Amino acid sequence: MEGIGIVGAGIAGLHLGLLLRQHDVPVTIYNDRTAEQLAGGRMLNSVAHHHATITRERALGIDDWNDEEYFYYGHHHYLGGGPRPLRFPGFFSAPSRAVDYRLYLPRLLEEFVARGGEFVVRPVQAADVVRLSERHDLVVIASGRGSMSAMFPRRADKSPYDTPQRKLCVGLYEGVAPSEPRGVTMSVAAGQGELLEIPMYAPAGHVTALLFENVPGGELEMLAEISYEDDPAGFEKLVLEKTREHHPATFERIDPARFHLTGPLDLLQGAVLPAVREDYARLPNGRYVIALGDAHTVVDPVIGQGANCASYSAWALGQVILDDPNFDERFCRKVADRRRNHVHATADWTNLMIRTPPPPHLLRLFAAMSENQAVADEFTENFSHPDRQWDILATPERVTSFLARHGMG
Amino acid sequence: MEGIGIVGAGIAGLHLGLLLRQHDVPVTIYNDRTAEQLAGGRMLNSVAHHHATITRERALGIDDWNDEEYFYYGHHHYLGGGPRPLRFPGFFSAPSRAVDYRLYLPRLLEEFVARGGEFVVRPVQAADVVRLSERHDLVVIASGRGSMSAMFPRRADKSPYDTPQRKLCVGLYEGVAPSEPRGVTMSVAAGQGELLEIPMYAPAGHVTALLFENVPGGELEMLAEISYEDDPAGFEKLVLEKTREHHPATFERIDPARFHLTGPLDLLQGAVLPAVREDYARLPNGRYVIALGDAHTVVDPVIGQGANCASYSAWALGQVILDDPNFDERFCRKVADRRRNHVHATADWTNLMIRTPPPPHLLRLFAAMSENQAVADEFTENFSHPDRQWDILATPERVTSFLARHGMG
Ligand SMILES: Cc1cc2nc3c(=O)[nH]c(=O)nc-3n(C[C@H](O)[C@H](O)[C@H](O)COP(=O)(O)OP(=O)(O)OC[C@H]3O[C@@H](n4cnc5c(N)ncnc54)[C@H](O)[C@@H]3O)c2cc1C
Ligand SMILES: Cc1cc2nc3c(=O)[nH]c(=O)nc-3n(C[C@H](O)[C@H](O)[C@H](O)COP(=O)(O)OP(=O)(O)OC[C@H]3O[C@@H](n4cnc5c(N)ncnc54)[C@H](O)[C@@H]3O)c2cc1C
Repeated sequence: MEGIGIVGAGIAGLHLGLLLRQHDVPVTIYNDRTAEQLAGGRMLNSVAHHHATITRERALGIDDWNDEEYFYYGHHHYLGGGPRPLRFPGFFSAPSRAVDYRLYLPRLLEEFVARGGEFVVRPVQAADVVRLSERHDLVVIASGRGSMSAMFPRRADKSPYDTPQRKLCVGLYEGVAPSEPRGVTMSVAAGQGELLEIPMYAPAGHVTALLFENVPGGELEMLAEISYEDDPAGFEKLVLEKTREHHPATFERIDPARFHLTGPLDLLQGAVLPAVREDYARLPNGRYVIALGDAHTVVDPVIGQGANCASYSAWALGQVILDDPNFDERFCRKVADRRRNHVHATADWTNLMIRTPPPPHLLRLFAAMSENQAVADEFTENFSHPDRQWDILATPERVTSFLARHGMG
Repeated sequence: MEGIGIVGAGIAGLHLGLLLRQHDVPVTIYNDRTAEQLAGGRMLNSVAHHHATITRERALGIDDWNDEEYFYYGHHHYLGGGPRPLRFPGFFSAPSRAVDYRLYLPRLLEEFVARGGEFVVRPVQAADVVRLSERHDLVVIASGRGSMSAMFPRRADKSPYDTPQRKLCVGLYEGVAPSEPRGVTMSVAAGQGELLEIPMYAPAGHVTALLFENVPGGELEMLAEISYEDDPAGFEKLVLEKTREHHPATFERIDPARFHLTGPLDLLQGAVLPAVREDYARLPNGRYVIALGDAHTVVDPVIGQGANCASYSAWALGQVILDDPNFDERFCRKVADRRRNHVHATADWTNLMIRTPPPPHLLRLFAAMSENQAVADEFTENFSHPDRQWDILATPERVTSFLARHGMG
């Protein structure tokens, strides 16, 4: 048997692979695309890593992008769409960083191979998994949102939506001056959706990701549908117009003359259907496979948690592999127990944030954040601690008791 | 609201109460018996605390019984009843201690009250719990094996037995010379049951507990049924005879002339039905109550885990109370997640040990222990770590891989 087999070279598979290589466990990663294809292809996402993830990267010996220029320090909130917009910042205890995955993943893959990991370029089919399970001690499915995740039934109790709640349009742009202090701007246009404006390091250098999260049927939905290729100038003009109308806190830092997409591949349009799936599956031959990352739990990108959660989960799985390498159902249950609170909190929190209309206790919390810096900072810090965020947000009573703790009766 | 209300002043309720008082949380313990009744009554059990529990006691500032005379260092195994008995010791990394609960619990209760805990002597009925739940932020049911535990449904998936698997007879005796080095003797009479011989500190001083765990229908069952009061000398004579015949490793250290029960109350006969119950229940008023200790999970005393597990569980619950004092279903689930592996491992391991006939992989492990001191020591050390013990014992494959790790192909 040849150690651990991982399907998928995303953050889930690579964080797990690097952790296991640090402990000399043999690892093979199977991926349908080469490092060059990952590096040269269409933009994959616009991921920010929060400090809990950066701490894990340091523990893995990933020391790139550590200069001040790559970091940002908090969130600038703009809650508009009503008569009186709310505007306030919130700060992390340690900074976050957003590096384009076309740079990030190939770098991790290079490191994985340099540390003795085996990388096999090959699309794995569901039908191949039994064979892989007989070659490896354990097979981990970390293949993202694609069809392989169907091996793990969707949990209805944790998956409240049957259709995507946002239509996405994310691109990399020049011509947006950074916010001060450098941060992500989270702009909410009530009833229409959100704009996440992210300072990102990409192949074109320091640029700005604009991630429009548009309510289906709303006034910005078309951003997810119109074609850039057909009419680049028309596309950029529409983005500018919608930003001016619905997301003024970002628009005021845009220089329209310089505003443009950094390239035709630096754009992604689509939608994400949130799903929490079972942690593991039993194959016909009696062996178990584990789901990891998006193959296990997909969240809408609105609060930027999917990759951070995939990294957390890779770590949890790696610890159990190192502690107790007996890959039976007891093993799978331990993995599930270990990550459950964090992963479910991530999904529950995200699903709350995309509920339309927003629940009153969320609006109550936002109002309190605008009045009390400590409240805003705790919410912002909890982007590294979704479990703690859900301790605050799970019920209206919890919001009340959180605010009472901050002296807000 | 007046802090935390705990029903039951056993180790579960008292460890939780002392932990919470260290953090100035208001706590009320309700118990149906006074400290004097506990101290002066019939023997409650013959509990040994392993080092993980002793570490928690030190953290709680319980510093009694810390001289060398109270400790013991491992287990002397005697596996008889077949043609060739196996005999071998196993040692802990740190010692265990057995103090009669008629000394132990009143001492903890005294400390609890001295530290500002409230102690109310009163039998609580199931019907009172709603009222208590409106007086306290949280009600914890730590009332032991009694009827209150029926609030928490028994989990069929974790409770394999419908009748007790052993008939118990435990008493405190003079006239048994200690084993060398001081330890618990675990004697197995194949098909008949076990004898646990425990060096115990009791009101009469340093004495020996003999805990006979008798297979129902077997040759020692009558020990659980005959009356001491009717014929003290006849009772002691029968105990001696059965010990000689079935548990020679203990018998050889008995001086029959000095052998006698230390008092009529120093004897307990009966049987324990193992059960794993749900972690929590929702009351008609929407509030939640948590089960703790024997009220949550009862195990047969054969490997002395119930009280140690109750202490672990009290600690886990206490940590969640201190972290996140919002006593809703999320809270209950976090408690359940936190203790599940440890508590279920305790139950699963114990239920394996009382299976008749014993499963072949358990016998394989015993044989290996008799040949390899490191294997015997790891098994013995794991009396403080039931989760690790179950990592070894959960399946025949796990025993094989554990033995392979010790170089035993
Ligand atoms: C627009 C956008 C913005 C986002 N922003 C954030 C953010 O700010 N913060 C955050 O934490 N998360 C964010 N996310 C989510 C994040 O991108 C994902 O959660 C994360 O990348 C998932 O990683 P993964 O390793 O599980 O899967 P993936 O990254 O999808 O990796 C899976 C890999 O497996 C390969 N593969 C798939 N099928 C097969 C097969 N059959 N055989 C072989 N290989 C296969 C794929 O090619 C891919 O390389 C965002 C997502 C989007 C879409
Ligand atoms: C013979 C024997 C040997 C054992 N040996 C060991 C050992 O070596 N190691 C080990 O770890 N465990 C051992 N155990 C198990 C251990 O005794 C129990 O698991 C442990 O004591 C349970 O503690 P508890 O606090 O949950 O319950 P209990 O100790 O039963 O405490 C419950 C308390 O609640 C009170 N109460 C009950 N109902 C009510 C009510 N309605 N209202 C108010 N008060 C109420 C009771 O009077 C009691 O004081 C042994 C058990 C037996 C029987």
